[in-house]
This record gives sequence, structure tokens and C-alpha cells, in this order.
Amino acid sequence: MFQTFDATASPEQGPPRLAALRAELARLGVDGFLVPRADAHQGEYVAPRDARLEWLTGFTGSAGLAAVLADRAGLFVDGRYRVQARAQVAEDFTPVNWPETKPGDWLAEHLKAGARVAFDPWLHTAEEIDKLETRLKTADIALLATENLVDRIWPDQPPRPSGPVTRYPKDLAGKGDETKRAEIAEALREAGHRAAVLTLPDSISWLLNIRGADLPRVPVAQAFAILSDDGRLQLFSDPAKYEGLGPDPAITLRDWAEFPKALQELTGPVRVDRKTAPLAVTRLLRDAGIEVAHDDDPCILPKACKTQAEIAATETAHLRDAAAMCEFLAWLDVAAPLGGLTEIDVVEKLEGFRRATNALRDISFDTICGAGPHGAIVHYRVTRETNRAVAPGELLLVDSGGQYLDGTTDITRTVAVGGPTNEQRACFTRVLKGMIAISRARWPKGLAGRDLDALARYHLWQAGQDYDHGTGHGVGVYLSVHECPQRLSRLSEVSLQPGMILSNEPGYYREGAFGIRIENLVVVREAPALPGGDDREMLEFDTLTWVPIDRALVDPALLDTGERDWLNAYHAEIAEKLGGTLNEGAQAWLDRVTRPI
Amino acid sequence: MFQTFDATASPEQGPPRLAALRAELARLGVDGFLVPRADAHQGEYVAPRDARLEWLTGFTGSAGLAAVLADRAGLFVDGRYRVQARAQVAEDFTPVNWPETKPGDWLAEHLKAGARVAFDPWLHTAEEIDKLETRLKTADIALLATENLVDRIWPDQPPRPSGPVTRYPKDLAGKGDETKRAEIAEALREAGHRAAVLTLPDSISWLLNIRGADLPRVPVAQAFAILSDDGRLQLFSDPAKYEGLGPDPAITLRDWAEFPKALQELTGPVRVDRKTAPLAVTRLLRDAGIEVAHDDDPCILPKACKTQAEIAATETAHLRDAAAMCEFLAWLDVAAPLGGLTEIDVVEKLEGFRRATNALRDISFDTICGAGPHGAIVHYRVTRETNRAVAPGELLLVDSGGQYLDGTTDITRTVAVGGPTNEQRACFTRVLKGMIAISRARWPKGLAGRDLDALARYHLWQAGQDYDHGTGHGVGVYLSVHECPQRLSRLSEVSLQPGMILSNEPGYYREGAFGIRIENLVVVREAPALPGGDDREMLEFDTLTWVPIDRALVDPALLDTGERDWLNAYHAEIAEKLGGTLNEGAQAWLDRVTRPI
Repeated sequence: MFQTFDATASPEQGPPRLAALRAELARLGVDGFLVPRADAHQGEYVAPRDARLEWLTGFTGSAGLAAVLADRAGLFVDGRYRVQARAQVAEDFTPVNWPETKPGDWLAEHLKAGARVAFDPWLHTAEEIDKLETRLKTADIALLATENLVDRIWPDQPPRPSGPVTRYPKDLAGKGDETKRAEIAEALREAGHRAAVLTLPDSISWLLNIRGADLPRVPVAQAFAILSDDGRLQLFSDPAKYEGLGPDPAITLRDWAEFPKALQELTGPVRVDRKTAPLAVTRLLRDAGIEVAHDDDPCILPKACKTQAEIAATETAHLRDAAAMCEFLAWLDVAAPLGGLTEIDVVEKLEGFRRATNALRDISFDTICGAGPHGAIVHYRVTRETNRAVAPGELLLVDSGGQYLDGTTDITRTVAVGGPTNEQRACFTRVLKGMIAISRARWPKGLAGRDLDALARYHLWQAGQDYDHGTGHGVGVYLSVHECPQRLSRLSEVSLQPGMILSNEPGYYREGAFGIRIENLVVVREAPALPGGDDREMLEFDTLTWVPIDRALVDPALLDTGERDWLNAYHAEIAEKLGGTLNEGAQAWLDRVTRPI
Repeated sequence: MFQTFDATASPEQGPPRLAALRAELARLGVDGFLVPRADAHQGEYVAPRDARLEWLTGFTGSAGLAAVLADRAGLFVDGRYRVQARAQVAEDFTPVNWPETKPGDWLAEHLKAGARVAFDPWLHTAEEIDKLETRLKTADIALLATENLVDRIWPDQPPRPSGPVTRYPKDLAGKGDETKRAEIAEALREAGHRAAVLTLPDSISWLLNIRGADLPRVPVAQAFAILSDDGRLQLFSDPAKYEGLGPDPAITLRDWAEFPKALQELTGPVRVDRKTAPLAVTRLLRDAGIEVAHDDDPCILPKACKTQAEIAATETAHLRDAAAMCEFLAWLDVAAPLGGLTEIDVVEKLEGFRRATNALRDISFDTICGAGPHGAIVHYRVTRETNRAVAPGELLLVDSGGQYLDGTTDITRTVAVGGPTNEQRACFTRVLKGMIAISRARWPKGLAGRDLDALARYHLWQAGQDYDHGTGHGVGVYLSVHECPQRLSRLSEVSLQPGMILSNEPGYYREGAFGIRIENLVVVREAPALPGGDDREMLEFDTLTWVPIDRALVDPALLDTGERDWLNAYHAEIAEKLGGTLNEGAQAWLDRVTRPI
């Protein structure tokens, strides 16, 4: 099993470590230290050695920040993690509601003018520190970049991860790494940049057509890199990880420790992404008198716009995943009504079906499996403590995905265990109408996710309902299941471009009662011209996910003709694509659930 | 008749005036002078004395700029006006495509490093000059604020307009002018501003509950004003215009000429809107060492959020206008199929029906009346030269509105003269679906027009179609028919708030064939809670316009149940609201066209 269900809660570890950290504050003569959950690569997962926030506080959530002062320690956690933080963390840490309360405001409230707050410039971006510094200036509080004080007091801090690096096949990537480097180098020359600093592991893994084994759920290799405008690249990591790859004259493997010095030997302007790169990078360059050009990581957009080969590969991965999902749903259809199943049983069974493909490298994130009221907790992860029976008469929401060599999947299906209520069917059908509206959308080139987001919500809005998350996020190909910069969200100004993979996942959540989410992955493509259409370049989505939607939850009277046709065509295409590939029981289930409504 | 149909075209006036202007350039030792269409108030209409661009070039369009250099003169006009500019302007002026070519780029191309370009700082905003200056700096070209060189060479330049000012009834405004001044003054104190400079006539007219007669189509009084943070106001204008109003101890009437000196006597910080105020205001303040706070004109948002009284008044105005529109459409229904009607006939007849209400103060803009292919020209205004017969078998698009004391209207109806084609009906029905989607929309508070725009376009997009204008603009109450800041547009980040009046006017245009637009005005209001709905504050639109939509152009098979119900309910409500108020023929027509489909 990849997924585990044990909730760690050892609040007693916090107080002595907090005391040790405060001794370091006193030694250094500063009034506070910031301990973010992030590492130097700003990803969703951190290696054990970078789990400083967890080590210090006991809190295991995927986002957060501790601000440790002499007389108090604030633990900033968002709405997802408030209950969890209270269970995992000693009373010495004061939970702070984030982002409602901003760290700058909190620090200004609890520190006097003239105070100095230390931070590790490798764990914060330039953008983050700029904002904080601007706020603290108004309170005459200074920020001071120092070594990491947690590392000083962590005697058995694990070493950096050093999972072996493997080459990602060029036929799946669709483009050789030397070509990618040449194209990015050309973009640098056009922008007048002499080099770019890369700090995001998925940018580096994409650029070099490699994958790693340093972190759970996301198959990247941790590293820093400097790409010169001639296409040569220096890679800073543990060189031993790369032993299997063989030499490449254009790539110099260097140790982590050499990165700061290498930065200071560059000729500017050097491109640095202030939204993602550690502030230390900018500071090291500027201290050496090197001009810094703050601009986007040059790999982000090319990585987001998948090649034809990547799209073809991910289609294969999605069909494989869909077959596993269908066998799972067919099993659930029989097993759930019998009673006795728990959320953990469901998660384990689902992972088993994916493993049985013999192609699963990892799950792409810990499965969200919420029965009844748990379905309304958007980021619910079952533990042995919260585990709940899947009771007949309830909805079950299952959001899961797999990492396969040829693609990353992410799918949510909500199913009725036993007969749903009319109200549940009405809500589900409204969510479905939004999901279909996005699936069928065509739009003129140049629009961002923000411009389409309302289409997914309109029918919920008409009923006075909505959901408090974005409609979709970017997805990589055997990379991160949450990929920048593409999003279907009110917050996204990035224009949608062919090849971008996104999730399409509207939902509806009734607290204490049930949760509904329906999620397919889609890929942006050029829309063909239509008879009678304008002479106007348009885009559309192509669906990647092929798993039936629970018909018991659909109220056909609420669908218009176009929506009903879409659903029937979708189910017919599933029957065609998956028919003959499933076990006997699943095939019978598939035949039944893909009939037209 | 308010509207006229004579196209002026006297290109021969341009060359001698251009020569005189160039002599002024030489006298002053500068290399160019900018002649914008705008006046100091940045409105849609200018008084004759401010029609400098027209006087110099002959061009009468509502937007444009001449950049006059020693050896060439560029006339910047946008897509609407390219044909018109060629007809009205001598060859000495080179038409430049705007905004594709920016004035800064054009100047940099045609001037040498070290050149100096003069401009009148009363006719350009700070934002505009900042942008231009930044661009020109890269070419080492300087901008120089000077007196207006056109005014120097315009011997018979008309005087400023001095239409009499009248008081706007408090029962229509819903709030006394002293209350408005007190509220804005409080907002200034909260922002730490000691005074605000007001340069927009509709802001000033709204704030003082006055209306004027200085310009066509928009009943504002031209003036500048300074509002102090204690609520006292200095008004700079022609004091004679205000004679009828009687004295008000909190308002000081001063002459235009005293404005610059009064600015320099203020205590800062003084609020100035850099997007709308003349650069001269900022410069005069700074030259006197007074701190300038660049912030929005403080009247813009309160003016946009109408009072209950303003909404009630505008509802009355819309019913009166709807009755006139119905009598017009009933007449057209009989007259058009007989043949022989021209676009001008239609415009004259429509204005006649509005005049017959005995309440029409002006039309709110020149009627757009486009038959057949003219309907596809979005900003078409018929002239004696372009006037075209309304031929049976064609679509006729009529976009018009009235200025009444109690409200400003703006409505577009597209009607079929004779039987429409299936293709025309399909296109019309898609536009209607978008217009209905906006009419029925509910959405959570905080969204901007940008977030809703796609709802109006989705069904056109599905057919590969779209329209190249915003979905809606703000509208005032017996003020400007194009009011800031509210918009239904991809470009609008302003959050929609209760009381804002907007147009809802999707369209579809097939060049050389036909144009379709359907426009109602709507007002934003709080949406009532719904059973089963979230505990979430939501907004919705209330419709103001009550005029039937041509059923001959609707294909009922393309409407879903909700859309058909909306259309039938809309028509039923029209029949109820207007029934009994129309002449006999119009009543029979109304009965017929409001039957359910």
C-alpha cells in the first residue's frame, strides 16, 4: 500500500524543541524565527529532512508556518487543518487562522518596534519576503536572513533524499532533452538573459527528461539547475543519484554545496522566478554584483503545453486507469449495499485495482474517500481515527489518481449507496450540468481559466448554491498532479493554450450531510472550424477520463437536450473504449451503467 | 428632431489650418503637437469650442488623436472610423490604425532623438501622459506641456457652452446633495485626504443634484469642482449658468479662470483621479508643493450604485419608453413589409414616438438603425449618403434610447422584415439564450463583470460564433448612457454591486449580410435566499426594459425549458405592464406578440 492511515499525534515533542529553538534565538540576539512548511523547492511534498515544521510542532499538514517568538509561538494553518492542528500540536503553539490573519500583521501585533525576525532565505521566495518586509517596515520590525535555526537543534535530521534518477523515454516525452534545452536557451537569448536559475524539481525533471524517487506521490528528482543561454546546464544535487544515466557533455553534475558559489560566478542578467525561487538565489546573485532579471521560470509554460506524444501517452494511462476504476466501481456496486465497508476498505480496494494493472508507480495523491458527511470535507483524508462505515442511503465521494510512467491521473466519482434522495439527485445533476458545460465549451483563443469558471457554476448559482474551490487545476504527465500555471479558476489570468491538461471538477458540499464532486481530466486543443461559424480561432477541451457517472444520481428532467446527448455519448464512448478489457462482473456492470438515459 | 443625418465632409479646411499649426510649432521651437478629440472632462461628447480635432482635420468621430509633426501629421482612428476618416480628411493627414499602432511608437518612428513634442496638459490625463512619456523616453523624445496651439490659430473658436443649470429633484435622486457631500467628505477624511478635485461633469452633476444643457445627449453641466473634507465645495464654471439655483452657503460659485489658482491654495493630500483628471491638475498641485493622492474620483462608485428612488424613477422612465417602443414596433410591423421605408424614415418615426410621450428631453445617443448588411456594422449611424431601404426579407437592428427627467434608457431590438431564414433564426436564438442567461443569473457577491461575460457567449461559442464588443456597459439615471465603472466585459474587474444599472446586449454580426443585437437594461439587486440554497450572499439582475422580442426570430427548439419559461414570463409581464396604455393598433400587436411560445 502506498497510502497509510495512521495519524501521528505526538504533541509532547514540541515543547522541548521549542525551548531549544528559543535558546538559539537568544544566542543570535533575534526576536523571532520563521519555520515554514515549504522546502527550497516550494512543492506540495517535502522530504523528511525538510519536514522542519512537523519536527518542531508535530503538525503534518501540507501547508503552514510557525512564527516562534520569545514569549509565544503562532502556528498558521488554513481552514482545512484547524481540527488536525489542535490534535497534533502542544498548547505551547497558538493556532492562528490563516490566511485570515497574515503573518506580518500577527508579528506586528506581538513584537515591539525595533524587533528583528530571522528566517532561512532558502525556504522563502523573494515575493513572499518582499510582501512581509513591506508590512513589517510599517511597524519598524526588521527581517534578517540567517542559517536555519531548526537545523542547528535537530540532532538526527535525516540526510537529503537520494532516490535513483531514471531517464524518461523520449517517445513518451515527444521531445529530446537537448531540443528542450536549445529551445529554452533561445528564449533566454531573446529575452536578453544570459542564464536561468531553475529551482522547481518538476521544471528540471521535465527539461532533462528524467524522473526521480525523492518524494512520495510526485516522481521528481530534487535538484537546482543553472541553464546557460547556450543550452549548457549545471545540475546541483547528489551526483550519485545520476550514476545510472551516463555522461552528457552538455550537463555538468555538481554537488548541492557548490550551488551558491556557481551562482556567484555567473554573468548577468540572470533570470530568477521571484514567485518560486528561494530569496537566497536573488541575494547571492546581487551580493556578487550580478544583475537579476525577475521573470517566470522558463520551463513552466512549455511544460504545461504537452506534446502530441505526451497527450497520446496520457490517453493510454487514462484508459488503463479507467479500467481499474470501472472494476473498482463494479465491486463497490455489489459490496457497498451489503454494509460493513469502511472508508479505509474502499481506499485499499481501489489502490489494489490500480496496482493490479502492474503499471502503477505510485498513487498521485492520497485518496479522498468520504462517506456521508465526510464527503462535505473538501480535503478529507481518512485515518484510523476518523474511519467511518459506508452506510447504505449515503453518498460516497472518491477522489483519487495514479502515477503511471505514461501519465498522471486524477478522477472523482460520487456514487449513491442505495437510493439517493431527490434533493441529492437535484444537487448532483446541477454539478453534472456544470461539468458538462466545461466539457462542451468552445471559446476564442486568449481566454484564461477565469473567463470560463462561471460556466461550471451557473446552474448551482441558480439554485442559490456554489462551491468554495476552483473548478480545475493543471496536471502533469508523470509529474505533479497539481501543475502550474493553468487553472480553471476565478484567480487565474493565464491564457489557456493547446496541450494544457486540466481537471474539470465542480462540486457541491452540504456540511454535515453529503458531498458531491465529479472530476474528469481534459486537455485543451484547437477547435475545428464549424459550418456557419466565424473565421475565428477557437479552442475546446478533449476529455481524457473515461469512467461512467452514476446514473442513479442523475435527474434526466433537469438536463437539456445537449447535456443529455453529451452524457449518453460519453457513456457510449466509454462502453466502446473499455468494452472487452474488463473482468466479467465489471463488464456486465459497464453494459448496464452506460446505457443511454 | 434631435438626430441629424448630414455627414460633414470638408477636407479642404484641413491643409491651411495644418500649415498655421506648423507655424506655431516653429515659433515655439517644438517638433510636434498632439490634438486629441477629448476635452478637459474626458467625456463622450465635446462642446463646439472643444472640437479641436474636427476643426483641424474635418474628422467628426467620437474618438481619435492627431499627432502633428513638421513633415507629417498622423490621424489615429479606430476600426469604427477608418472609412469615415478617409472621406472627411485631406490627404495631408495620414490615417493611422489605432490602437494597433500606439502614438508613442509612431512618434518614436518619425522623430529623431532629442525631439520635443508639445501637448495641452488640460486635454490629457496623468495616466495617458505617463504611459506616453515612458515610451518616448526610450527614444530620447521629450514631452512638453504648453498652451493649446490650436486655440491660438482658431480665430472664431466658439465660447464655452453655458446652458442653464437646473436642480435635479431630490425625490428622484433619493438623496439630498448636502447628504451626498457629507458622505463623500467622510470618505475623504477616512482616506486621509483633505480635498478631492472633481473634473467629470457627471460626477459633479450627480453630487450637486443638478443637470445642465451644455452638451448633446448627456444632460450634464460642464464644470470643475473642489470638494473639501468638511463638505464645502467650490464650483468652477460660468456662474451665470447657475443663476436660477439660488445661493447655498456651502457652495462657492467661481469662474473657470480661478480654478488653477484655487488648486494651488489647497492643503494636501488632495485626491486626484489620474485616469480621468487632466494632467494639469496634478502638475499645478505639485508645482505648489501640495501632496497629490492619486485615487478614484470619489463620486464614481456611489453614483453607480443607484438609490431606491433612482431605481423607482428609472423604472417609470423605462415603462414610458417601452410604450413608445411598442407603438414604434407595431407601426414598423405594418409599414416595413409594404416596402419603401428607409433607415432614416425609421429613425425619424422612432424619435417621433418618443417625443409624443411629452417627456423626452433628448435621445440618449444617435439611434443605430441598420438594415440588412448595415446591421453588421456595430456602430453604424445612418447618413443621407448611406441611407438604405428596409427591404423585405432582411433583418433590421434598432439600438436607441431616451433621456427623460426620471431616467436614461437604452434598448436594442432586432426584427425580421418578412420571413427570416433558418440560419438567421438560429443565430438570433443563440444571442437570445445568452441574453436570457445574463437576465436569469444569480452569483455570489464579489464577482466582476468579467466573471459573468462568458455566460452571454457560451451558446454562440458552441456554434463557432462570437461578438467583438462587451456584453454590457453601465448606465446612469438622466445622466450618461455610458457610465463607469460597472461593465459586463472581459475587461472589467469592478465588482458588481446592488443598484448598478447595466446593459445586457449580446449580439452576432455577419459581415455583409445581417446584424443581431438584443439589449435590455438590468439593475443589480440582492438575491433572496432560496430553499435548499447555501447560506451565501448572492446578487441577481432585475430587468428594467419591457419590450417584446421578435418571436418570428426565435427557434423554440433551440430553447431549453428554463429559457422558454423566461421568455414567456417576460412577454406576459410586458402584456400586463403595458396593456391598456397603448393605442388600439399597438395594443392588438402587443396581444399578438406576447402570446406564449
